[in-house]
Amino acid sequence: MGQIRLYIAQPLSVNNAIELDEKQSHYLTHVMKRQVGDSLLCFDNQSGEYLCEIAETSKKHCVLHILKLQRSYCLPPDIWLIFAPVKKDNTDFIVQKATELGVRKIIPVLTRYTISERVKKERFIAQTIEAAEQCRRVDLPEVAEVIDFENLLKCWPTDRKLYYLDETLNSKPPLQAFINEDKCAVLVGPEGGFSLQELEQLRKAPFATGVTLGNRILRAETAAVAALACWQALRGDWK
Amino acid sequence: MGQIRLYIAQPLSVNNAIELDEKQSHYLTHVMKRQVGDSLLCFDNQSGEYLCEIAETSKKHCVLHILKLQRSYCLPPDIWLIFAPVKKDNTDFIVQKATELGVRKIIPVLTRYTISERVKKERFIAQTIEAAEQCRRVDLPEVAEVIDFENLLKCWPTDRKLYYLDETLNSKPPLQAFINEDKCAVLVGPEGGFSLQELEQLRKAPFATGVTLGNRILRAETAAVAALACWQALRGDWK
Repeated sequence: MGQIRLYIAQPLSVNNAIELDEKQSHYLTHVMKRQVGDSLLCFDNQSGEYLCEIAETSKKHCVLHILKLQRSYCLPPDIWLIFAPVKKDNTDFIVQKATELGVRKIIPVLTRYTISERVKKERFIAQTIEAAEQCRRVDLPEVAEVIDFENLLKCWPTDRKLYYLDETLNSKPPLQAFINEDKCAVLVGPEGGFSLQELEQLRKAPFATGVTLGNRILRAETAAVAALACWQALRGDWK
Repeated sequence: MGQIRLYIAQPLSVNNAIELDEKQSHYLTHVMKRQVGDSLLCFDNQSGEYLCEIAETSKKHCVLHILKLQRSYCLPPDIWLIFAPVKKDNTDFIVQKATELGVRKIIPVLTRYTISERVKKERFIAQTIEAAEQCRRVDLPEVAEVIDFENLLKCWPTDRKLYYLDETLNSKPPLQAFINEDKCAVLVGPEGGFSLQELEQLRKAPFATGVTLGNRILRAETAAVAALACWQALRGDWK
């Protein structure tokens, strides 16, 4: 049996007890068939990951004893992912993969050619929690409110680089574009790409650098995963 | 309307005509609503990509005139992907993404912890065709027969490097592991990872090098995409 990991939405500390909500209690005792005395790992997105033991189970709730701090809280490198929502499954996929690949913040952006489905922030958050539990992060990425492309550029924090994925082949490859470990963000357009006007705005922005991922046309979700992986390998915590 | 691209399973050459099969004819005229006189791109996985024009349509077939060679046939860098089949959707995903990321060959492997679902080669091939059409490859990756882990190592071509993804954190990161542009393959284990015995065999194999993608645990499909992207950026055709 693999070790269960749960994100707990309350502060954890050693020698305390916590009561799980109904959903997590159900998951632990009914779905995963765990019993009093079984252990699991919990993290609180603020102090770290703890070894816990199931102390009580009843119909709708579970009490855990927090035994030991296993890993202290720490943040991944300071990279964000900004993406234009695509079809539901692919959007889920992007949020899940961005979490596994260690982004600190996920920002949905509406561009000219975005097939504007309603952005469900709660759904995104649930995806980040599930992925963080699975990939052993001790933190959760932040999910930002959806923003318009215009406002994204207008409100951009100038101390952060913005790498936009450019399908026009006019930009640099990752090895040349990802030049240092500065705070940054990767921006992936929708299936239809950026509009010419958007590309022009990006080219003019002093904080923005284009990145071209070869001459095969990648789907948006492939490009997102590929760019984040390249950045982690070249400048992030895979070095 | 975006340009349609089709893989045609017969040799193409300028000034010739070809008759599409029923499925492709249906797709072109009924799904995509194309008519006589409309143009599209076709590639044959042997001579290149051609601009074609619809010359005739009838109930169940379509005739195309081949007007012009647009791009000559060429192969992507010589990298293979070897992966342990996972759940259906994730397997589809891996095959699709490997095609977008330019692998020459896709090999399903059965390892100790592979959740051994039946490997459907025809389904894999259909996925490679769809992905190649979409990402503008002029070739198709080869889909190999499924092979046992033991036989994979036993029959390994010794002039080809084998990079296996190692979750034990005992291997090098991509920047150090992917040292040159030689012929190579990326091997991704199943969700349960490689067995200790398999890892031992890999460590002993002179052609094999472990690669560790950071300390977050990546799902098999994420690891496959990430490793291929890193190799293309560092040593492949994204340089």
